[in-house]
Amino acid sequence: MKYTIFIVLSIFLLFSCSQKPKHTGVFVKDINALNNAIQQASPGTNIILANGIWKNFQIKFYGLGTENSPITLKAETPGKVFIEGQSFIQLGGEYLTVEGLHFRNGYSPNNSIIKYMINNDSIANYSRVTNTVIEGFTKPNRYTNDRWVEFYGKHNQLDHCYIAGKSNDGETVRVFFTGNEHINTHHQIVYNYFGPRPRKGGPRAETIRVGDSKTRLTPGYVNVSHNYFDACNGEVEVISDKTNYNSFTNNIFDKCEGSLVLRHSNYATVDSNIFIGGDDSDFYGGIRVVNTGHWITNNYFYKIRGEHFRSPLAIMNGIPMTPLNRYKQVADVVVAYNTWIDCASPFQIGVGQNLASIDVLPKSEIRSAAPIRTAIANNVIYNTKPDKTPLINHDDMSGILFKNNILDNNRSDFNEFDVFQNEKLKMKQINDWLYAPETKNKALDSVFNGYDFARIKNDLFGASRSDNNKVGAINQLATAEKFKIDKSQYGPDWFSTEKETTEPNILKASSKSGELSNLILQAKPGDIIELTDTEYSISTPLKIDKDITLRAKGENKVEIIYKGKAHTPLFEMNPKGNLKLQNISIKGQGNQLAFESLAENMASAYNLFIDDCIIDNFNYILKASKGSFADSINFNKTVIKNSEHGFVLAADEKGDYNAEMVTFNNCEFNNISQNLIHFYRGGYDESTIGGVLTLSNNLFTNCGKTEKSGLLIKTPGIINVHISENTFKDNRVKLVALLWGEKNNHHRNNTFINSGEIKVEDQQKLEILY
Amino acid sequence: MKYTIFIVLSIFLLFSCSQKPKHTGVFVKDINALNNAIQQASPGTNIILANGIWKNFQIKFYGLGTENSPITLKAETPGKVFIEGQSFIQLGGEYLTVEGLHFRNGYSPNNSIIKYMINNDSIANYSRVTNTVIEGFTKPNRYTNDRWVEFYGKHNQLDHCYIAGKSNDGETVRVFFTGNEHINTHHQIVYNYFGPRPRKGGPRAETIRVGDSKTRLTPGYVNVSHNYFDACNGEVEVISDKTNYNSFTNNIFDKCEGSLVLRHSNYATVDSNIFIGGDDSDFYGGIRVVNTGHWITNNYFYKIRGEHFRSPLAIMNGIPMTPLNRYKQVADVVVAYNTWIDCASPFQIGVGQNLASIDVLPKSEIRSAAPIRTAIANNVIYNTKPDKTPLINHDDMSGILFKNNILDNNRSDFNEFDVFQNEKLKMKQINDWLYAPETKNKALDSVFNGYDFARIKNDLFGASRSDNNKVGAINQLATAEKFKIDKSQYGPDWFSTEKETTEPNILKASSKSGELSNLILQAKPGDIIELTDTEYSISTPLKIDKDITLRAKGENKVEIIYKGKAHTPLFEMNPKGNLKLQNISIKGQGNQLAFESLAENMASAYNLFIDDCIIDNFNYILKASKGSFADSINFNKTVIKNSEHGFVLAADEKGDYNAEMVTFNNCEFNNISQNLIHFYRGGYDESTIGGVLTLSNNLFTNCGKTEKSGLLIKTPGIINVHISENTFKDNRVKLVALLWGEKNNHHRNNTFINSGEIKVEDQQKLEILY
Repeated sequence: MKYTIFIVLSIFLLFSCSQKPKHTGVFVKDINALNNAIQQASPGTNIILANGIWKNFQIKFYGLGTENSPITLKAETPGKVFIEGQSFIQLGGEYLTVEGLHFRNGYSPNNSIIKYMINNDSIANYSRVTNTVIEGFTKPNRYTNDRWVEFYGKHNQLDHCYIAGKSNDGETVRVFFTGNEHINTHHQIVYNYFGPRPRKGGPRAETIRVGDSKTRLTPGYVNVSHNYFDACNGEVEVISDKTNYNSFTNNIFDKCEGSLVLRHSNYATVDSNIFIGGDDSDFYGGIRVVNTGHWITNNYFYKIRGEHFRSPLAIMNGIPMTPLNRYKQVADVVVAYNTWIDCASPFQIGVGQNLASIDVLPKSEIRSAAPIRTAIANNVIYNTKPDKTPLINHDDMSGILFKNNILDNNRSDFNEFDVFQNEKLKMKQINDWLYAPETKNKALDSVFNGYDFARIKNDLFGASRSDNNKVGAINQLATAEKFKIDKSQYGPDWFSTEKETTEPNILKASSKSGELSNLILQAKPGDIIELTDTEYSISTPLKIDKDITLRAKGENKVEIIYKGKAHTPLFEMNPKGNLKLQNISIKGQGNQLAFESLAENMASAYNLFIDDCIIDNFNYILKASKGSFADSINFNKTVIKNSEHGFVLAADEKGDYNAEMVTFNNCEFNNISQNLIHFYRGGYDESTIGGVLTLSNNLFTNCGKTEKSGLLIKTPGIINVHISENTFKDNRVKLVALLWGEKNNHHRNNTFINSGEIKVEDQQKLEILY
Repeated sequence: MKYTIFIVLSIFLLFSCSQKPKHTGVFVKDINALNNAIQQASPGTNIILANGIWKNFQIKFYGLGTENSPITLKAETPGKVFIEGQSFIQLGGEYLTVEGLHFRNGYSPNNSIIKYMINNDSIANYSRVTNTVIEGFTKPNRYTNDRWVEFYGKHNQLDHCYIAGKSNDGETVRVFFTGNEHINTHHQIVYNYFGPRPRKGGPRAETIRVGDSKTRLTPGYVNVSHNYFDACNGEVEVISDKTNYNSFTNNIFDKCEGSLVLRHSNYATVDSNIFIGGDDSDFYGGIRVVNTGHWITNNYFYKIRGEHFRSPLAIMNGIPMTPLNRYKQVADVVVAYNTWIDCASPFQIGVGQNLASIDVLPKSEIRSAAPIRTAIANNVIYNTKPDKTPLINHDDMSGILFKNNILDNNRSDFNEFDVFQNEKLKMKQINDWLYAPETKNKALDSVFNGYDFARIKNDLFGASRSDNNKVGAINQLATAEKFKIDKSQYGPDWFSTEKETTEPNILKASSKSGELSNLILQAKPGDIIELTDTEYSISTPLKIDKDITLRAKGENKVEIIYKGKAHTPLFEMNPKGNLKLQNISIKGQGNQLAFESLAENMASAYNLFIDDCIIDNFNYILKASKGSFADSINFNKTVIKNSEHGFVLAADEKGDYNAEMVTFNNCEFNNISQNLIHFYRGGYDESTIGGVLTLSNNLFTNCGKTEKSGLLIKTPGIINVHISENTFKDNRVKLVALLWGEKNNHHRNNTFINSGEIKVEDQQKLEILY
């Protein structure tokens, strides 16, 4: 073995005070040297990783530092040390620091990338990972589970990191509590930038999960503060809190399609968080409340439009004497001094009440226990447009004390349930999303004997509440006016979260053999390929692994004829493939596929945007493998015809589904013999609320001839199905669709001519997964 | 209204320093004056109750004292103020003290005697009840539920009180956590003397219960320290802990037929408690462990012989994903530095494992989850007689780390499971029950990284563990040698727990009409009545409401002939009736009862000890009402014959039964047509482990002629049935008995002649009660 260790003598440094040393300590250039340095480290040792790419970095960093002299493993230059390939780092011991690394172009070969434990005898305590980036370090197979950061031990910290792009199964960050060594942790997850996490299509895709159902009795004391969550869309829970006494404060949730969920936790502190939504999605979530003793104060919600489990404030119903892994009745919760601006039905009480399902679910699944001993007070709801139902009562609200909640519903008073004071508020708009009150609506606290409201000392922006205390999250206009989101405080100081935008190139492809294939291969993500001839013949699949647009150069459709082998696709959809087709006619030989995902290693989602096209004479239009995931499948003004199968979106039985937004608008379907649309989610998991199929203004004719199920459009287990303004003519099926009435399945204004009908079944029985 | 308030001016007191004032403040002589004084009280007010008997004292004591100037309600002379009749006191406000009262000769008309809350808006905090006695203040109907002391609020205290004799349904002391006003309580239950609580026959008879199943997530922080528990035999749980972070330290459990049970709690501290048992009962209990994170250290157990749920150390199996009110799997528990002396099978791991019942119980009742992540270390087991099974493994012990547990099994090594170090210990006997080690067996703590054993700083008697730390509860012989139980530190300073013993009088009754009845009426408890004639005729029931013995003066049997009305009993058993019959023949007219309990208002238990008697020609021998309870029914050398019914011990369906110890030894049963013995417990409640029927060396002939069930001895739901060495001859039944094999039901060496047989049914299906 050869050790490459350079000892940069600190004696030298004593004589060169004018210039700050670039680095001190043990400088290492390869894994062996690094391991040797770790072995020899003592309190105060700095181990410095040489700049460059470190491949297959599989490091067990054990050491015993001290509070004043930690052992540090750091990049020579922060951000210039790239960890690639099959890599991970595990920490064990005390007072360790890891800083300045950049994980990219690879994945961990085991359960985690960063783990605060080596083994049961080498757990990390008082250790820190900081100023580090993990970017797209995702497992090749989307179905393989891992966590990127696994917390064990006590008093560990993850701060100033940027973490984004996890598309495989498993939480991004998970805190474990498997024993007395891992409780009362006081872990700090602070000042991180959690970048976009794509929709996963099912559970187990939280950005942070603190514990599990078995730890709902455990004292956690985890602090998640001052983090920025940017489009963390993995699933309905951005954060899933499952131990006690954790705090979530001063975080910003920016357009996240999920909620902060107090799932199995008790006595959580949720204070001074900002939830920013928008008009562009109905999925942005707020805070979902289960269990006992939470304090939800000083939070600010802007245009959060999520429904049901993703409501701006979802106070759930529980299950009487719930099993350990199900929903405990809400009790002793305080919701005070929060502000909702232009949110959709922000107060939802008794969410999850499912008494109607009593015949299809076991008793231990029925959420019949309405919240009790809960106070909702001193909050503000302000709407620039009236909201018909600022509060939705799903069950019995008699267990909730409503006091001094001010509603300005833009002159549309809401008096039902007698829970609001309708008032005109004067609000000042400070930026896109921030409104602060100019009205002086006094908060009440004397009525809450025993609730100790006096402990809420400051407002959302830290201004004191001691004088002229006001309702809502913001007490002082002046402090609010000064507030700006400063992204530089989140994530590493050397890493920018702003992505460069490049102008797309417009490339031109003639029908010359191989030219189109070549151009697709060479194009940069985002490029547009214009087809300049009228007919193209393609004989091998076109691999789509980036954002690419194919379009006819002129106004007339260009025809692509696929002459490839049977059972091969014209377009092979790879991870990150984002294909747009415009004004193109594609034609097969009857035995191939128009679009197909890879059978394996679909690490990331793909998309299809098909506009004004014709697809003719295939065996399948789209066949999506179980392991694949399409974020959007969008067909517009397109004719789809003469195919044995249509769209087959299969998934397995773990509550997953394999496409999020499936839309057909203004299309014509003709002579698709079976599986016209088969969009499937298997297994009952009530927190999975996805799969969206929208069919509007389409014409379906002569389809379903060989469909054995007798169903034209099959959507078992899919939560959101909207079928409207379509015409179904001469389709020889028993039913056009069988909808799930209890869920968000709807149909409207469809015309049926010799085509069966749409039936709604209120309750569906699915296999329970847990 | 008339107010009788005497203001004893404190100005006077300033001039009379030589003599301590007898009392200061507001002296009150009646309820109106008291209420008025309460209304006018301010910080520092002492309200003094005049000596004497206060009847129907129903007081709401609301006030706002301060830390340095509480408002006090006290006896003029402690112990000279008797609260009688229908009485209670409720506290509300802050810094209140109640002291020196004596509750007796009555009961509370509502749910409690002392309650730290008046209503939801008047909860007590920082309030104290001290130096007070509650003695036999029990509801007239044993079935009516109440608690004697109900804790609400925070920082309240019960100290130096004597509380004994609760025989009705409901815990003696209960702590409630119904809302944020009642959590993190820091209540103190200290230096009390919990006097005898009789066996109740079923659940809901704990001496202290802290919370309920719904509060298993709640932070309790209740401290139960330095209390004396004397024969607290209400049920299998002396203390039932059901919230988190409570502590039980330095208590003495003296011959209590139950355990300290960590039922729904987590992270309890159980340190330096002494459990004293003896050879006289197999029911004395130790510590039963359910759930997560308890520390059980420095406890001392002497001759604890309880089995199963009452084992000296019962570590239970849990239910996977248990419902909220059932058994969570044990995890993360530490059992260290405890000592067991002459206990029966002290270590029991996986108690409650009931996989064999999988066909008769729902899945959510099956305790299949063995303990995990638990350490049992540095303990001592010392036996002066060998114990064949110092450890019983009920399931899988792989989740338990055993380290450095020393066993001295009197030269009978126990090597199974490899969990003990067999060693010869040198022990010094300090008193009846206390043995301290002279051997220096070093404790190990370095192996317990993460368990923080260093936090166990002292031993059972407070001696430091910093030097020469030893295994077991006692580290320093010298400190142990000085230890004596000082009963004066428990309970009120003015009250003695030592009961006077008086010599019984021996009274003589001739057969003169009315003389026997009169003597029974006039006798003092404990007296003996000798029957001097040979035949007595009795025409109205004899009321037995005290301890009384009837015996023949000479060697020959005396005959009592009962000529009372049909359906009336010769002996009417009243609460506290304790009847002993010796060498007497009693004879009825075929349509009456020999013994019967009251139908209602059986506040306390009764006993029957029948020795060398003949009972002939009744309709029932004993008919016990559902609401009654017999502690002991003991028939010895007695002939029981010619009766339609035998012994009918009925109970209702709440897991209750109505007799504890039922014993027939050397008796003859002849011509009892039905219900020879019908001993019944209704409903499944697995923590009820009582009802004991012992039949040995009896002769049964010609019984069961009209028994419709085909069963001679009916014991449905009774846990302990022992049938041995009996002869059953010519009884026309299908079965002599149908035993419950899974429970403690056994038969041995019985002889069956033309009498059916005994059948054992391993599993019985009962209605689940919760």
